[in-house]
Amino acid sequence: MVSMTPKGEMVERFLDFAARGDVDQISIMISHSNFLVNECGQNGWTALMFASRNGHFEVVKALLSKGCDKSPVNKSGQTAYDVAKFWGHKHIANLLANDEAGSLERVLPNAGPEEQESYFSREFLHRMSEKRTDSQWLAAKQSSPETVFLLFFNLNPLVTAPADEAASGGSDMKLCRLRLPSVEELLRRGDTMVVFLGVEKLPESHSSSAQKDGDDGLTAWFALNTEQNPMDHLRSVDAQSFFLKPPMPGLLTLCENDAGVLAQARAVLAWHSRYSFCPTCGSATRADEGGHKRTCLQADCKSLQGIHNTCYPRVDPVVIMLVIHPDGNQCLLGRKKIFPPGMFSCLAGFIEPGETVEDGVRREVQEESGVRVGPVQYIACQPWPMPSSLMIGCHAVAVSTDITVDEHEIEEARWFTRQQVIDAFVKRGRPPFVLPPRQAIAHYLIKHWIGINANL
Amino acid sequence: MVSMTPKGEMVERFLDFAARGDVDQISIMISHSNFLVNECGQNGWTALMFASRNGHFEVVKALLSKGCDKSPVNKSGQTAYDVAKFWGHKHIANLLANDEAGSLERVLPNAGPEEQESYFSREFLHRMSEKRTDSQWLAAKQSSPETVFLLFFNLNPLVTAPADEAASGGSDMKLCRLRLPSVEELLRRGDTMVVFLGVEKLPESHSSSAQKDGDDGLTAWFALNTEQNPMDHLRSVDAQSFFLKPPMPGLLTLCENDAGVLAQARAVLAWHSRYSFCPTCGSATRADEGGHKRTCLQADCKSLQGIHNTCYPRVDPVVIMLVIHPDGNQCLLGRKKIFPPGMFSCLAGFIEPGETVEDGVRREVQEESGVRVGPVQYIACQPWPMPSSLMIGCHAVAVSTDITVDEHEIEEARWFTRQQVIDAFVKRGRPPFVLPPRQAIAHYLIKHWIGINANL
Ligand SMILES: [Zn+2]
Ligand SMILES: [Zn+2]
Repeated sequence: MVSMTPKGEMVERFLDFAARGDVDQISIMISHSNFLVNECGQNGWTALMFASRNGHFEVVKALLSKGCDKSPVNKSGQTAYDVAKFWGHKHIANLLANDEAGSLERVLPNAGPEEQESYFSREFLHRMSEKRTDSQWLAAKQSSPETVFLLFFNLNPLVTAPADEAASGGSDMKLCRLRLPSVEELLRRGDTMVVFLGVEKLPESHSSSAQKDGDDGLTAWFALNTEQNPMDHLRSVDAQSFFLKPPMPGLLTLCENDAGVLAQARAVLAWHSRYSFCPTCGSATRADEGGHKRTCLQADCKSLQGIHNTCYPRVDPVVIMLVIHPDGNQCLLGRKKIFPPGMFSCLAGFIEPGETVEDGVRREVQEESGVRVGPVQYIACQPWPMPSSLMIGCHAVAVSTDITVDEHEIEEARWFTRQQVIDAFVKRGRPPFVLPPRQAIAHYLIKHWIGINANL
Repeated sequence: MVSMTPKGEMVERFLDFAARGDVDQISIMISHSNFLVNECGQNGWTALMFASRNGHFEVVKALLSKGCDKSPVNKSGQTAYDVAKFWGHKHIANLLANDEAGSLERVLPNAGPEEQESYFSREFLHRMSEKRTDSQWLAAKQSSPETVFLLFFNLNPLVTAPADEAASGGSDMKLCRLRLPSVEELLRRGDTMVVFLGVEKLPESHSSSAQKDGDDGLTAWFALNTEQNPMDHLRSVDAQSFFLKPPMPGLLTLCENDAGVLAQARAVLAWHSRYSFCPTCGSATRADEGGHKRTCLQADCKSLQGIHNTCYPRVDPVVIMLVIHPDGNQCLLGRKKIFPPGMFSCLAGFIEPGETVEDGVRREVQEESGVRVGPVQYIACQPWPMPSSLMIGCHAVAVSTDITVDEHEIEEARWFTRQQVIDAFVKRGRPPFVLPPRQAIAHYLIKHWIGINANL
């Protein structure tokens, strides 16, 4: 047993009264020792959080009336507001939100066009597509010492992992930012695919006019892919670096900036690697426009008359949806055989030609689970570079509840209650299932349904 | 001047009182001649529409109390409800909507996840993708006398137009529904592409169990495309029918069912016509799975290892957006050189690899117009089978207003006031611009914006 100071004991007693909703004892203790209102126990939980957790409205009011600070967060990054909201005590959440102007920005889910930044979505670079046809500019940037090159070997990115994993708090990967001397030899080889990704964004104040010496001051980024082992041709590369193979799930440990640029780079490179022949006539093609177009080499090919999608990278729209039970308190999740043990996630599938997002949701859910869907609501989207999908995330409301699983698609589908989902988030006891990783939009769709802003 | 019958004169007078809000005269006239409540003048406007147009609540109430029919539409296809709503008379719109249960489904824009049915989006058939791999079932359906075949020649659909255009109130096209005897010879030719579209939806009450004689009672639909003139091989085809070339804008006069099935059929057929060679190795491919897959014929092709998007039809996601001025009362529209004279529409562009819908909106708007965009809100989407786009429609709020047009993309871009947009809708006086056709999602995005805050 941990020994405790008298003050520590008093704090524990105070927190216990708050957790049990004993507003009389709380009031008495505050009247003697006002400092208690802002004390916290283990895990950073204050009295306000405990009262919010257990729905004790009168205790919350008493604490607020005594000037209790609402801003502290517990070790899970939650404020008292987050706790109240997470546990469904709306009257308390409203009280905490409305008490102060600064908290008003915490809006309820669905209350407006608040945009979710999804993993793989950050636009770290300015794509500057107008430069893709400026071959002189591209050539100059490719031979500039300032330029950054990302390297892929069979679409697996060159990364470094911190030498001391413990120090980084995990195994965070970083994309290797190579410079001209490292890749000069590779660039000379004809089989290296080169894609112009964009330039680093400049502060608003920066003038975009040309600098002296014809240098525009912009730092360009390129992605390179080769299907021959490039190690012999690389110079002065960090000894810690390696090609991440397979790319998943390691890619999910990149920082947001790296994930965003990786998503663009890998999707375009994957297109080059699978679309090097003209689908219209079978001839060879060449890469154009900084790697954003392929042109058929056969002069009389139909693909050269007019504009055709055969010449441009492919983006595959996918619907991914959390289906909500007609009772509003359960959601439908499924698992594929390839999922890690215990994991359930949102249903998903490719949108077909001639189909809307909403009808794609209805068709996929019915095909995979037999459940019929009525209203569909767009929530958020996410690029997913395996190889080049656009995940369009929706909430959908079921109009039937019987489940008949298509075993070619999924192994199992089940309705989970709101409480079971919350248990999976807080990993309490033996959670009934494992959530998809936080970097996947499925995770966000589920979290958004639960209605939490908490950083769990 | 047009001469008028006594009855015609009385109707004109009645409509005029309704438009001016003279509820006393309206009541007197109705008491003598109740038939007046459902009469209409030029352009199909009834007294109810005129009163709704000009916000005369008491007149609307008086007309309704006398059993006035709310369902007629004027020549712009608007009911009195639509007119009231369009002109911002919410109390009248509510009165018209609530008076009867059937009208309750008309809810205000943005009042919830109400889904807009866009042209080309109706799922008239059940796609039954599980049958695509059932070659025996597909073969049986292809030789069934019940089966419906749609025919395309170089992606131009076989259609009929009504012999008497005036009688149809326009030039409405219909897809020709051919039966086996008409296309039997074409089906035997190796160069005819055959795509299984789905089966006609059955009433809920219908049992899906097999019927006697092994016939499941389902009417299948197929789309055929040929690149050789098929006329010599067709049998018993309506003499009025012809291949619609070019398909646009004629396709926009199909009924909703035909437009929906056309969108699926043409998108998949267009994919076959441009993707008959394997993009990974350049070999020939064969169509599989009822025309929903292509398989490379070279045994050691990489595309045969694992699942690759090269084998499946392509759907190109496009962002199309109405950009709203920071003042909330102007919107940004642009025109391309190829537009009909005077037409301005929403900006649009393909989503790039690694990009979200929202960032695609921001990039395209900035590239095409120089305007910077902040919040983006998804509104609705639309399949667009030229050849296979998915138009993702958004509203976006500008954070800068200076326009710099990219002349490669658009000829002109301009801020239009709410009033100018309304003038374009009602075609009053000399409208400052022409709207995109009502079948285009751009039209809906603009109308939806006007509908949101209209207070006219
Ligand atoms: Zn070609
Ligand atoms: Zn191949």
